Amino acid sequence: MLSLRSLSARLSAIAVAMLVGSAAGQTKAPDYTRSVDPFIGVDWGGNTFVGAALPFGMVKLGPDMETFDGRRSGFGYSSYGNVLGFSHLHLSGAQGKYGNILVAPVVGHLDPADIRSPRTSETAEAGFYATTLSRYGVKVELTGTRRVGFHRYTFPASNDAHLTVNVAAALGLGPGYEAQRFLGADIRVLSDHEAQGMARFEGGWNNGGEYRVFFYLVTDTPAAQTHLWNGADLIDAKQASVGRGVPVGIDFALKTHAGQAVQMKVGISFLSTEQAKENVRSEAPAWNFAAIRTAAVAAWNKELGKLHMAGETPAQRRMLYTAMYHVMLMPADRTGENPGWTSSEPYYDDFYAIWDTYRSSSPLLTLISPDRQRAMIRSLVDIYRHTGYMPDARSGNDNGRTQGGSNANVVIADAFVKGMTGIDYETAFAAMVKDAEVPPKDPQREGRGGLKDYNQRGYITLNDERAGSRTVEYAYDDFAIGEVACGLGKTGEAAKYFGRTHNFENLWDKDMLVSGFKGFLRPRKADGTWADPYLTVRGTWPDFMYEGDIWTYSLYAPQDMRRLIEMAGGNQRFNDRMDFIFSRGHFDVTNEPGFLMPVLYAYSGRPDKSADIVHLLLEKYFTDSRAGIPGNDDSGAMSSWLIFQTLGIYPVAGQDVYLIGTPSLPQASLALAGGKTLRITTKGLDPAGLNHYVQSVTLNGVDLPNAWFRHAQIEHGAELVFTMGSAPSAWGRTTPPPSMSDPGYRTCVTQ
Amino acid sequence: MLSLRSLSARLSAIAVAMLVGSAAGQTKAPDYTRSVDPFIGVDWGGNTFVGAALPFGMVKLGPDMETFDGRRSGFGYSSYGNVLGFSHLHLSGAQGKYGNILVAPVVGHLDPADIRSPRTSETAEAGFYATTLSRYGVKVELTGTRRVGFHRYTFPASNDAHLTVNVAAALGLGPGYEAQRFLGADIRVLSDHEAQGMARFEGGWNNGGEYRVFFYLVTDTPAAQTHLWNGADLIDAKQASVGRGVPVGIDFALKTHAGQAVQMKVGISFLSTEQAKENVRSEAPAWNFAAIRTAAVAAWNKELGKLHMAGETPAQRRMLYTAMYHVMLMPADRTGENPGWTSSEPYYDDFYAIWDTYRSSSPLLTLISPDRQRAMIRSLVDIYRHTGYMPDARSGNDNGRTQGGSNANVVIADAFVKGMTGIDYETAFAAMVKDAEVPPKDPQREGRGGLKDYNQRGYITLNDERAGSRTVEYAYDDFAIGEVACGLGKTGEAAKYFGRTHNFENLWDKDMLVSGFKGFLRPRKADGTWADPYLTVRGTWPDFMYEGDIWTYSLYAPQDMRRLIEMAGGNQRFNDRMDFIFSRGHFDVTNEPGFLMPVLYAYSGRPDKSADIVHLLLEKYFTDSRAGIPGNDDSGAMSSWLIFQTLGIYPVAGQDVYLIGTPSLPQASLALAGGKTLRITTKGLDPAGLNHYVQSVTLNGVDLPNAWFRHAQIEHGAELVFTMGSAPSAWGRTTPPPSMSDPGYRTCVTQ
Repeated sequence: MLSLRSLSARLSAIAVAMLVGSAAGQTKAPDYTRSVDPFIGVDWGGNTFVGAALPFGMVKLGPDMETFDGRRSGFGYSSYGNVLGFSHLHLSGAQGKYGNILVAPVVGHLDPADIRSPRTSETAEAGFYATTLSRYGVKVELTGTRRVGFHRYTFPASNDAHLTVNVAAALGLGPGYEAQRFLGADIRVLSDHEAQGMARFEGGWNNGGEYRVFFYLVTDTPAAQTHLWNGADLIDAKQASVGRGVPVGIDFALKTHAGQAVQMKVGISFLSTEQAKENVRSEAPAWNFAAIRTAAVAAWNKELGKLHMAGETPAQRRMLYTAMYHVMLMPADRTGENPGWTSSEPYYDDFYAIWDTYRSSSPLLTLISPDRQRAMIRSLVDIYRHTGYMPDARSGNDNGRTQGGSNANVVIADAFVKGMTGIDYETAFAAMVKDAEVPPKDPQREGRGGLKDYNQRGYITLNDERAGSRTVEYAYDDFAIGEVACGLGKTGEAAKYFGRTHNFENLWDKDMLVSGFKGFLRPRKADGTWADPYLTVRGTWPDFMYEGDIWTYSLYAPQDMRRLIEMAGGNQRFNDRMDFIFSRGHFDVTNEPGFLMPVLYAYSGRPDKSADIVHLLLEKYFTDSRAGIPGNDDSGAMSSWLIFQTLGIYPVAGQDVYLIGTPSLPQASLALAGGKTLRITTKGLDPAGLNHYVQSVTLNGVDLPNAWFRHAQIEHGAELVFTMGSAPSAWGRTTPPPSMSDPGYRTCVTQ
Repeated sequence: MLSLRSLSARLSAIAVAMLVGSAAGQTKAPDYTRSVDPFIGVDWGGNTFVGAALPFGMVKLGPDMETFDGRRSGFGYSSYGNVLGFSHLHLSGAQGKYGNILVAPVVGHLDPADIRSPRTSETAEAGFYATTLSRYGVKVELTGTRRVGFHRYTFPASNDAHLTVNVAAALGLGPGYEAQRFLGADIRVLSDHEAQGMARFEGGWNNGGEYRVFFYLVTDTPAAQTHLWNGADLIDAKQASVGRGVPVGIDFALKTHAGQAVQMKVGISFLSTEQAKENVRSEAPAWNFAAIRTAAVAAWNKELGKLHMAGETPAQRRMLYTAMYHVMLMPADRTGENPGWTSSEPYYDDFYAIWDTYRSSSPLLTLISPDRQRAMIRSLVDIYRHTGYMPDARSGNDNGRTQGGSNANVVIADAFVKGMTGIDYETAFAAMVKDAEVPPKDPQREGRGGLKDYNQRGYITLNDERAGSRTVEYAYDDFAIGEVACGLGKTGEAAKYFGRTHNFENLWDKDMLVSGFKGFLRPRKADGTWADPYLTVRGTWPDFMYEGDIWTYSLYAPQDMRRLIEMAGGNQRFNDRMDFIFSRGHFDVTNEPGFLMPVLYAYSGRPDKSADIVHLLLEKYFTDSRAGIPGNDDSGAMSSWLIFQTLGIYPVAGQDVYLIGTPSLPQASLALAGGKTLRITTKGLDPAGLNHYVQSVTLNGVDLPNAWFRHAQIEHGAELVFTMGSAPSAWGRTTPPPSMSDPGYRTCVTQ
């Protein structure tokens, strides 16, 4: 018999069911979580989280696997390695942190050093995870709230069953670079069904200082006996305090009958065990797994429902709702859980890193979740107030480590020029100026490395790492500061920072010739002369360019593409260079520095070429499989790129401008603030993708001749209608998006 | 309304229909061509052919597109460029040849230099292609026979319609390297509905000499007028002879009413216009487009039906039948069309290249189409008889150009050790010895470059290009010769060539240390001392290694993996090195030199690691999309790799051995010769792919403890039953596949 097993077949069936349902006039709200597949991107370096979490949830409860390097998001490659247990703190689209308070069931003799098990029948949904540990025959189900992990383990009959809690566990423990270190813990068994404690860790990808994870756990099944281990062996004590590197954990020994479900709630806090207990009390007071799970699904549907679509393929539906899900896993809402200072402001952690997310994640949230984006920005400003800098990356309650440097400036400007209210922009502006003026003690931690050079010479010399990429990023950061200064009426500061925005020209060697193209970024010495060109394919830290090459960074000047195109020899030569980059493998779809590149043809009069490139990139690099994200999802950055490019619009982060690429959905809409909607209708698409060229566009019924528009044109709701065709058209070629050196450039947007 | 547009949804519907059909007891043979999607692999360098062709057909009638380099298979990137017309000769999974006799409809003023048009509504199936040219509003339908292209153009009403034939057209015309050159043509209009002629070309990827394409064409609609062009302008002549580079073609001017279908049959021959006309007469005598198309579908179903499966996903079904289709597009059966010599032997052209196809295409055809494989081998031997060498690559009736060198030796041995009859092995053996002993005049054309060095020193020095890859390939070629010598009872020759098979050791520098691993292939001077190591990531022609690096070629010794593993430090170090290769990006899935690598763990006692790698490679690199083939399909080589690896078995080409990887289909079978069947049943697979580890295997009900078996164990039909699990097992770890240095190695298989 032919079995229809594939998920795409299942989804077709669901789609049919929905069609039938809708035909029958049913009005029940769609369950968007049915289209979320948390496994998309787990393999091949997407590093996406698998487990139970709320949108921006603090607790992310999921399995940790054996991996060859132990450094992934926890899940690792889906088909590789045993389950070590289920821990409560994770990243998504990132690695090198957390994996704490690891719970695992055991049946039979308990050796704390060998609890791992293969798994079968694994399922993951938004807010839910289940599997069966085949070594033990235990079914595992997980769900949770913002700060509580809710576990259910269904045991076979056994006189020797256990629920164990490894308090010393963390991902990537070790002495090496980027490794986490376990510093010690205190644990206490409170009763036959309760325990609490605190574990201390440091290090990890961001080289962070100590972070403390407090927990309070309670089971619904009294243990026959409890034990601890502090070291290799089980002991009968109720309490233990251990130091650096010493194994430590708790065992609830159980006698189970076949099919007996044992539940456990684990409250997590960064403040205290009392707070951890309070989190259980306030968020998950009852023993109702189903209710917690239903609430999680509802929370996700509220967020996912901000994207609506029709006429999409099942694969597109899966990809896009999963992308929405991935965008909203990070950063973590830690409001009320900040151990560093007392504040009434929101508190978010795991900005990981803003260098990744400022490009399209932030602009997406500004559109569909402005309240969330506002809270995050307020948190960034509050972190500045109390630590002295806004982070470029932050995790484990500690700033670090910087990538391009101070891209939070662009995040502030993006919100500002889009009219986001409720932010203390005066303090935000002070934070931006701090970035631009005060060299940090540790430039890998925060602020701008190489700042002295940059501010004295207008470029960074080879005395500092990432001199090339930082120079062009700082120039754009300064543009962002200028925008906010301008809008706040700070005329002097605006002139000062706008004056620095052309620093990207200072590393441009107009005579440098590569593959027939003239003019590239080039290392420059302190005396102003050129150093040897930087020609390696991809930079690594520390190096002249961070995670990008001369083809990518030489075209990075979103504040003044007109000038940059002129420097590159005009539209035709610029287009030739772009064609060369994409056809000869100089574009890297797996990393953020190139995010804007495919749509840069909008500035050079050939939006049809952007359409070609975007269409081909979507076709090859994004799928609905476990390998469906081409590089690290980077806290959802890659996913947000997918969403915008599929919709056919792409933000120039830090400006009130969207570029038009090629829309791929017949109907899509985004829910904006205040009940408004951005509707995107695309006429004439064909399944083969031949008709990917925009022929014409209307915005609210009025012809839109340009391959771009401003935020103000859509922020109160709008209808974009694209008419597509199989051949490039004359549309969008005449008036490029704004650049600073445009005649009559509008320098100032006021709030 | 939710529209279910995707192909996967369509296929689910088909699958449901089939399920219903089967439940209702219907016995109609399935139409496997419904699962063929010729668009798989057209984008991102798969270079697969799109158009109408029979299995191994000579005529491959399909669209040629504008491309940035004009060098692709004709179709180019599916979403890019205008249609130039529909030509009759193409490659698949390759580029750099053909694109001849280009037919195109025109409506309105005819400018022979500007006939191109965008297209819409494009469809491709096995034996059929259709589109609408939007510039002209003409619907195009194509089908064909082995040597005849059958066109149907449905016109709008027009007093100025045309059917044009560009006789000077070819893909990648130009003066440059690998470009084709048009040398001249003779054309003659025979009547208001007939024409014939001949065009001459040379060059292309294989640097081939002149090839002549003869045509005879006939339409079913008398032209109102006919014209020629020989140069830019239309003239009234009936006949033209032009020289190198001069545009030349034919115009049938028509007056059409709306919806008028005009049909054209184009007979192609490499012998004469008379033969071209005879091809039309014998293969497509009537004006019955539907009958020709139905026959093409039937021919494909006969071939595709050799693979049967159940329980597969719709995507797997599409991928695998399309892979079967791609494997059988190349080489071209040119029997009866050989202009070089008269022979009663079969004649095949477009071995492109055997270096690509010997690894898995040939072994696949030996299993499921032994008659076809026999014919190809007889053709190779006949080419040797008449040109002096078997080709390593051949196209346009000319040998060239060699890749690794003389891999036809492995093809002969593969057939021989698998007991294929009907081949003149004495002559085949002479051809192999010729390769091994007689240096060719032009080593890019045929034979073994660097042979003198190799035979004198046992390795190739840096005096010749590709010294490293050729040395290890020749060592394996010599093993192939030894096998055939042995089987033919040529004891002396067998000893001689088996004696050379350890030449792979001669370039192994046991002290060369890279990334902690000791022992790599290294360039060596004529005096026996080492030259500088070859450490670039990927070699290019000419260089030490051809299209592969030291990680790949250093592990190439299929004749004696036991010895090679010993040289690499034993099983553990070998496995560590393999792990390093796959986890650190040193494996290149896009090219043939690495084809065997993922399953080499079978030799080092860890078939579970092969399962990991194969599972992940299938997940990431093969999809049912237009980007679904990771590199050039290389005449179906990549597709044949996909078929074997999905089935869970992989041939060691040139030996009677198959290695076991990880089967991915619940049920599959291959039709073998004589009505026998190889059935593969896989128990315990899960949709998520967790259960990809073989736990145990039975072959015809008997436990198979090894991760390999011999051809004799399946050739008369067999049933393989795999039991899968989620964790690596002890299965297959004990007895590795055969290696020459095994104690008691069986050196000789007799026919």
